[in-house]
Amino acid sequence: MHWSNNRGSKTNVPCCVILAAGEGRRLAMPEKGPKPTHKVLGLSLGERTILACMAAGVSRFIVVLGSQAEAVRAHFAEVSMRRGCDVEFVVAADWHLGNGISALAAKDSILDDRFLLVMADHLVSTALIQQVLHTALCDREVCLAVDQNTTRVFDPDDATKVQFKHGTIECIGKHLDVWNAVDTGVFLATPALFDALADAAAQGQYTLSHGIEKLAEIGKARAVDVSGQLWLDVDTPDSIREAKRRLLGSLGKNGADGFISTHVNRRLSIPLSALLVRTPITPTQITLGSFFIALVGAAFFTVDQLWASIVAACLVQLSSVVDGCDGEVARLRHLATSHGAWLDTMLDRYADTAVVMAITLGYGAGHPGALPWLGGLAASTGFLLASYSTKEFALTHGVPYPNNVLNRLKRRDLRLLVMCCGGVVGYPYHAMVVMGLVTHALVVGILVNGWRLRSGDARPALVSSPHAFPRRRETADAGPDRRSPIPDPRAGSRGAA
Amino acid sequence: MHWSNNRGSKTNVPCCVILAAGEGRRLAMPEKGPKPTHKVLGLSLGERTILACMAAGVSRFIVVLGSQAEAVRAHFAEVSMRRGCDVEFVVAADWHLGNGISALAAKDSILDDRFLLVMADHLVSTALIQQVLHTALCDREVCLAVDQNTTRVFDPDDATKVQFKHGTIECIGKHLDVWNAVDTGVFLATPALFDALADAAAQGQYTLSHGIEKLAEIGKARAVDVSGQLWLDVDTPDSIREAKRRLLGSLGKNGADGFISTHVNRRLSIPLSALLVRTPITPTQITLGSFFIALVGAAFFTVDQLWASIVAACLVQLSSVVDGCDGEVARLRHLATSHGAWLDTMLDRYADTAVVMAITLGYGAGHPGALPWLGGLAASTGFLLASYSTKEFALTHGVPYPNNVLNRLKRRDLRLLVMCCGGVVGYPYHAMVVMGLVTHALVVGILVNGWRLRSGDARPALVSSPHAFPRRRETADAGPDRRSPIPDPRAGSRGAA
Repeated sequence: MHWSNNRGSKTNVPCCVILAAGEGRRLAMPEKGPKPTHKVLGLSLGERTILACMAAGVSRFIVVLGSQAEAVRAHFAEVSMRRGCDVEFVVAADWHLGNGISALAAKDSILDDRFLLVMADHLVSTALIQQVLHTALCDREVCLAVDQNTTRVFDPDDATKVQFKHGTIECIGKHLDVWNAVDTGVFLATPALFDALADAAAQGQYTLSHGIEKLAEIGKARAVDVSGQLWLDVDTPDSIREAKRRLLGSLGKNGADGFISTHVNRRLSIPLSALLVRTPITPTQITLGSFFIALVGAAFFTVDQLWASIVAACLVQLSSVVDGCDGEVARLRHLATSHGAWLDTMLDRYADTAVVMAITLGYGAGHPGALPWLGGLAASTGFLLASYSTKEFALTHGVPYPNNVLNRLKRRDLRLLVMCCGGVVGYPYHAMVVMGLVTHALVVGILVNGWRLRSGDARPALVSSPHAFPRRRETADAGPDRRSPIPDPRAGSRGAA
Repeated sequence: MHWSNNRGSKTNVPCCVILAAGEGRRLAMPEKGPKPTHKVLGLSLGERTILACMAAGVSRFIVVLGSQAEAVRAHFAEVSMRRGCDVEFVVAADWHLGNGISALAAKDSILDDRFLLVMADHLVSTALIQQVLHTALCDREVCLAVDQNTTRVFDPDDATKVQFKHGTIECIGKHLDVWNAVDTGVFLATPALFDALADAAAQGQYTLSHGIEKLAEIGKARAVDVSGQLWLDVDTPDSIREAKRRLLGSLGKNGADGFISTHVNRRLSIPLSALLVRTPITPTQITLGSFFIALVGAAFFTVDQLWASIVAACLVQLSSVVDGCDGEVARLRHLATSHGAWLDTMLDRYADTAVVMAITLGYGAGHPGALPWLGGLAASTGFLLASYSTKEFALTHGVPYPNNVLNRLKRRDLRLLVMCCGGVVGYPYHAMVVMGLVTHALVVGILVNGWRLRSGDARPALVSSPHAFPRRRETADAGPDRRSPIPDPRAGSRGAA
């Protein structure tokens, strides 16, 4: 069966062999179907593997079937239709002998001189795949991604150990005495791997490790250290829980969060997202829900009484927390779009404006005169300018405004929390005016600092040097891989402003 | 003399030979010094030539001296120091014989297999240079940029005519009977040009045209049609006036202006810029001046009387006009920076906010209650959201929001003019509220339309496809060459919002 699709067929990214032939006995949950179809936070392990590879540019997959072949085939066929990638199936008749024999079944489907090889039941991040794809490979070499940070390995007893030096594997196996890394199950291979596997099989050795051992003997087995990247061999109920923990832990690590997001909002929104991701609720519905909660909260602020102010404050803070969930659920489900980011960030601006207007109305009712309103005007314009300033900077200069104190203090999460704290004690207006004035001061600081930061660059813009950056604000990768020193100007967390 | 500088030395852009040896007798203004030093709107012809080439990536220049060599040398040396490019000088002893002999003097300075050749006294746009640089050149060929739109040629009698077919020059000369294009004086050449010039010189023919004729005889003279690009042979007092006219005409043609900018503001700001460009006033000073005028105008709006309202309206509209001058002067002087665009656009937001606050204060003084202030809040947030929305769109999606009616109606030029018209008749507040509500409606339209426009793209953002666009919002080119069908998201006119 061959699901055709045009996406990315012209890239130079190699195809990917997915081993989905194993039995998964250790998982011991036969009622849930074969292991690649097990769901972790809303998506099956198999779908997560495909999506991690697709986000790295892979568009053609060869899935090796074995145990429960028809159920696994049906699952991957459905994923390929829905996500738009080519999936070809091969059946490994003797899969039960070992995963080396399963890999051998893909031999005739490999047309290029390089291919990826991954396990259907491993959780891997796009960044890990990308790092492996960037490895230089010489003639007839095979490269294995290994993790040197062995203390972070979840189930070290069961892991395949590797001893390597200067990028070359010296030995590999489950029971090495001396080892310095662990096999992650991700390979970048030349077809020489098949010859090595066939050699090993001729000697009654049927695993991938045996094949790599053969290559190591002739110095053709390379290792690339992917320490710090998200990966997990999911083969026990415990490791499924660990997979969830690691996926959730990777959210909100893009370095663009403010103080409150990091220390308050994310701690509440991530558990909430873990619940939401199991429901059919879409990220867009969460965005709209957060906006609606903010509007209801704002309505309570117009009532100049303590109880209403407390209700309003709780609702607005709830909205601020839920505002983090849309992006989290989108990333967990690999559904993040520029589309969603656009709606989210625009509605945030309207929600801010509604809250300020409501607080000012509530306070102004009991305090006639121009002063309350001047405060409201200052706050609403300050909050909008805060969002505007750093985005204008990124757009004008083509680089993001640095995530410094000015930038972190002017964020939405902080100003909403301060206003809500004010609301709980009955002083939402005063908290709002203080935040409004502070925010104006921060924006002036950003204006001056932005001018100063670029003054080394004040020469005429003679050559319009093209500056490539990813087209979209959100990528669909859930891995902890967005901490580049200079983040993409649009890599901010969904709705962070 | 060799002015060293590191800029762009590693690019593949060829070096450029500038012929600055001629006498310029027809200009007949000996008191103003040699022709390449004649100023057109604040910059000499020689400096404009260098800047047009630098903006196209050229960083090394060979200037051929002849008539008044020391004055010309001193001028180009000063330009090279100030603008940061390599300039090497060669002296053509027999320059008076013809420009072919002058070009021959550069022979030993050409180290690469391709070079540009331009005239120091021609006005050329960066886009023209870029088009010529993109021409494919075969072995021992020379390519001449020609203009087929002969009706636009300023002084057809004096022009060198060209007859070409399928990109190959058949004949060239001042007095052809049959011709279909005009020589622009810009060449992309291989060193074969020098051999052709030497051949011609051996037969007593001393001009570049003679050399091209030799190449045409063996089918090695190519032509590239640059119709529509800005170029002008500046050799008479009349043509200096025409050069000014064309440079000014190229301002404000970037397709990003609103209705009012195009039909009102630019008509006032361009003549003003033509005056300002001759003074030492910098674009940044103009930006600050425009902001200051807006603040003074806003102050008058706080007085709830007709005379004050009229003064305020005039000042705010003046500020809106002057707001166009900073970018125009910067482009005319090749001084445009992202720096300047940043200050300009941020101060515009503050000026808008100040004007709205002042109008609301003035009206609120005579009309107690919450309603006047709600109107002010609506207007100030509407105006900020208008600027925010399209910039957020460009940043999130990596493409500019289309310049449709919604986008053109929500611009600053229009809302300021409407408020000022209201001010002149004594109703600035009402005009402001109407514009505020209209702007909010437009922003909602942009939000919905932006969501709809991208819904064909609503698939998960699987591959973060890199999208190259020029780093800076403004390039330093004054040519009419920014009308690409999909403008750069940051190519908006300085401060257009």
